[in-house]
Amino acid sequence: MEKEYTIEELVEDFSETAEKVTALLKEKNYTEVKKIATELPAPDIAEIYAEIPIELETLFFRLLPKELAAETFVEMDTDEQRRLIESFTDVQLSEILSELYIDDTVDIIEEMPATIVKRILRYTTKEDRAMINTILHYPKDSADTVMTTEYVRFTAAMTVGEALAHIRRVAIDKETIYTCYVTDKNRHLCGIVTARQLLLSDPETTISDIMDEAVISVNTHDDKEEVALLLERYGFLAMPVVDNENRLVGIITVDDAIEVIKEESEEDFAKMAAITPTDEPYLKTGVMSIFKARVPWLLLLMVSSTVSSAILAGFEAVLPAVLVLFVPMIMGTGGNSGGQSSVTVTRSISLSELEFSDILRVLWKELRVGILCAVALGVVTFAKVQLIDGMLLGNAAIDPTVSFVVALSLSFTIIVAKIIGAALPLVAKKIGLDPAVMASPLITTLVDAISLIIYLVCASNIMNI
Amino acid sequence: MEKEYTIEELVEDFSETAEKVTALLKEKNYTEVKKIATELPAPDIAEIYAEIPIELETLFFRLLPKELAAETFVEMDTDEQRRLIESFTDVQLSEILSELYIDDTVDIIEEMPATIVKRILRYTTKEDRAMINTILHYPKDSADTVMTTEYVRFTAAMTVGEALAHIRRVAIDKETIYTCYVTDKNRHLCGIVTARQLLLSDPETTISDIMDEAVISVNTHDDKEEVALLLERYGFLAMPVVDNENRLVGIITVDDAIEVIKEESEEDFAKMAAITPTDEPYLKTGVMSIFKARVPWLLLLMVSSTVSSAILAGFEAVLPAVLVLFVPMIMGTGGNSGGQSSVTVTRSISLSELEFSDILRVLWKELRVGILCAVALGVVTFAKVQLIDGMLLGNAAIDPTVSFVVALSLSFTIIVAKIIGAALPLVAKKIGLDPAVMASPLITTLVDAISLIIYLVCASNIMNI
Repeated sequence: MEKEYTIEELVEDFSETAEKVTALLKEKNYTEVKKIATELPAPDIAEIYAEIPIELETLFFRLLPKELAAETFVEMDTDEQRRLIESFTDVQLSEILSELYIDDTVDIIEEMPATIVKRILRYTTKEDRAMINTILHYPKDSADTVMTTEYVRFTAAMTVGEALAHIRRVAIDKETIYTCYVTDKNRHLCGIVTARQLLLSDPETTISDIMDEAVISVNTHDDKEEVALLLERYGFLAMPVVDNENRLVGIITVDDAIEVIKEESEEDFAKMAAITPTDEPYLKTGVMSIFKARVPWLLLLMVSSTVSSAILAGFEAVLPAVLVLFVPMIMGTGGNSGGQSSVTVTRSISLSELEFSDILRVLWKELRVGILCAVALGVVTFAKVQLIDGMLLGNAAIDPTVSFVVALSLSFTIIVAKIIGAALPLVAKKIGLDPAVMASPLITTLVDAISLIIYLVCASNIMNI
Repeated sequence: MEKEYTIEELVEDFSETAEKVTALLKEKNYTEVKKIATELPAPDIAEIYAEIPIELETLFFRLLPKELAAETFVEMDTDEQRRLIESFTDVQLSEILSELYIDDTVDIIEEMPATIVKRILRYTTKEDRAMINTILHYPKDSADTVMTTEYVRFTAAMTVGEALAHIRRVAIDKETIYTCYVTDKNRHLCGIVTARQLLLSDPETTISDIMDEAVISVNTHDDKEEVALLLERYGFLAMPVVDNENRLVGIITVDDAIEVIKEESEEDFAKMAAITPTDEPYLKTGVMSIFKARVPWLLLLMVSSTVSSAILAGFEAVLPAVLVLFVPMIMGTGGNSGGQSSVTVTRSISLSELEFSDILRVLWKELRVGILCAVALGVVTFAKVQLIDGMLLGNAAIDPTVSFVVALSLSFTIIVAKIIGAALPLVAKKIGLDPAVMASPLITTLVDAISLIIYLVCASNIMNI
């Protein structure tokens, strides 16, 4: 009996499709498996692949058409790739490798154990091997780590017709044919032509007449996040990458740029929550890996809170016990105020909206915001302590002086916290540290200690202790 | 004297270029201004535009070639757009409007005061007006709010040659020509053809032979962030949007998808730092706007800390004063532990990696991570309190019982904080609240109160009070 598979049904629930595939594989009904597989795009096949039993993996993979198999391979996680490579014969390995783009091969090599890397390198062509070696030695986070060398290149003297013929010849190996690059005989980048322009121009026109000479390019050493943001800013489908002599060496395509933007913001989320960033999805990360990413920061912050404890010890010795009740509130509000500023400033730095040279404008802005917040929260706090903590909860030790000391300390804490929260990420950036690491929790620890000192000073002055 | 402008020099420092342009405008040297402007892409002209004096704005804008002017207009901020529209004659306004894509016009209309909206609508064509009205009534955050209706559509019976001729005719008005859509006579989406396929196929081939029928599309009501992530997953340059009857109504292009991904993650950053999200860049946001986005959350969190104060008041009455010294440490570690879990889970939800149905897997994972962290920090805390706070800082009130109570309370707090931090965002998502708002600060307040209760219970049981 003939069955029809529609993509809507197959992607509705991947676990269901995986079960169906597993059953068909066990029944040796390979024709049906192939039919299902050819309906689906590679990322979905990888999703299904992840859910079928390990002993059927290799069999399933071999049923995929060659090109789809390579695309699916790129989408798999490291363990699945490793198991497959181990199962490959030498012929199969070199077949898959010949289907991959260089940048994908490099991504895979970076995650594999040494023995497998050796095997992969043995089955790549000499040229590719040289290229892979070069890419592997690029500095971390630089533009060249995400670029591809597989782009379409014209000379200015070509006609549009010749250019189109050239595209037809080379397209199969190129990541994009929609933005093409015009170079001179020394490979200097001198213009850009889009496929749209080619399609709309007369075949007799020469490329030099239609190319856009105002080329925006980036350097191989530029930071990959800045490059991704530039590509987004200009709405490009690809960004050309040149070396120090303005020679075109590669392009960064929009899909890689999105990935960089996503990865970098996820890294910032992790750092701001005091976690060492990893790029595995949560459900696929093991308990030990999560533990290792989190525990050093908890330990560091726990130990650094010794400062607050020590100040509090001095505090308890001289001040009335009632003031201690408001320590969590003052510390908490200080932490939240500082966190607001530091997260805002850190993200603005990441998005290239702020630089160290803006520090005075930033501090002036935060000072004014801080004063406004301080006044608003000061007034409300005075009322709250008097009415809720004093009258409603019936704490007899609270009088207007206590409420005033609490409110005033809170106000000063807010202003100081906002200034520290805004300044630290900028200073970190300046001295080459990571602004995101300076954000939230580390600033909180610092603000905790400072807020206690402010509280202590206000109380001892106003209460004449 | 003839001067040459290169794009490298002009984008090196926008303030310098803006000064140059200002000077040229004042000298009425319009030829030079035009020369500079035509070297630059629209986002850079908008940057320079923002820095020239207001009285020169309109003059500068009128010197731009028509198409570049429209592109620049889209990049400006709302105030600049408003001032320009007010300065436009009716003819100028309708000229600019005719150059804009519908989705950009809608973005502008959404930010303008009513009088200007009226004027804009008067100068759009009847068809466009109907379309704008439809788009304006789409539900917030749905896919249709970011889609464009300007795509290329083929019938399956066309030949490749006819399709290319069709592209040449309509390209000028289309946002992308690189992915084209095949529909039947009822506008049902039945296939996709890329410009790459068209270029590589024989002109006599019919579209039905080369089109990809396994089309992935989204519904108009789908969440725009999910759609953007799908587009990224499949590496598309555009994602087709269909209505409930599978009729093609628009496409979402990759540049809009990147913007959605960026905006949504910036919103999460703001919410997690207890700030109401805005989409203006920091340096362009006024002090009052920043204040208004931050102060309600500070007030809410400050008032909610009354709970902690009340518990602490009960605590002080019965427990030895030395235990109070470690309240900030226990609260802080609890907050950090909960924050780690909640940020991880919240981002996984945002990236569609986690759903409510995963809650048991998540809690089981967090429980194990929590126990590991609890053991590690418990041991270190015991040693730290004994050695640093007790011996090094010479606090005579610290004995092994005190250290044990502190370490044990801290351990329990970590486990509970991790469970709460992971569960709350998932529950929030389930009941239709925003998971990001549940993250960090709100969880911190909750964990503060619970950690105090744990401390109180541990201390009174172990110390037999």
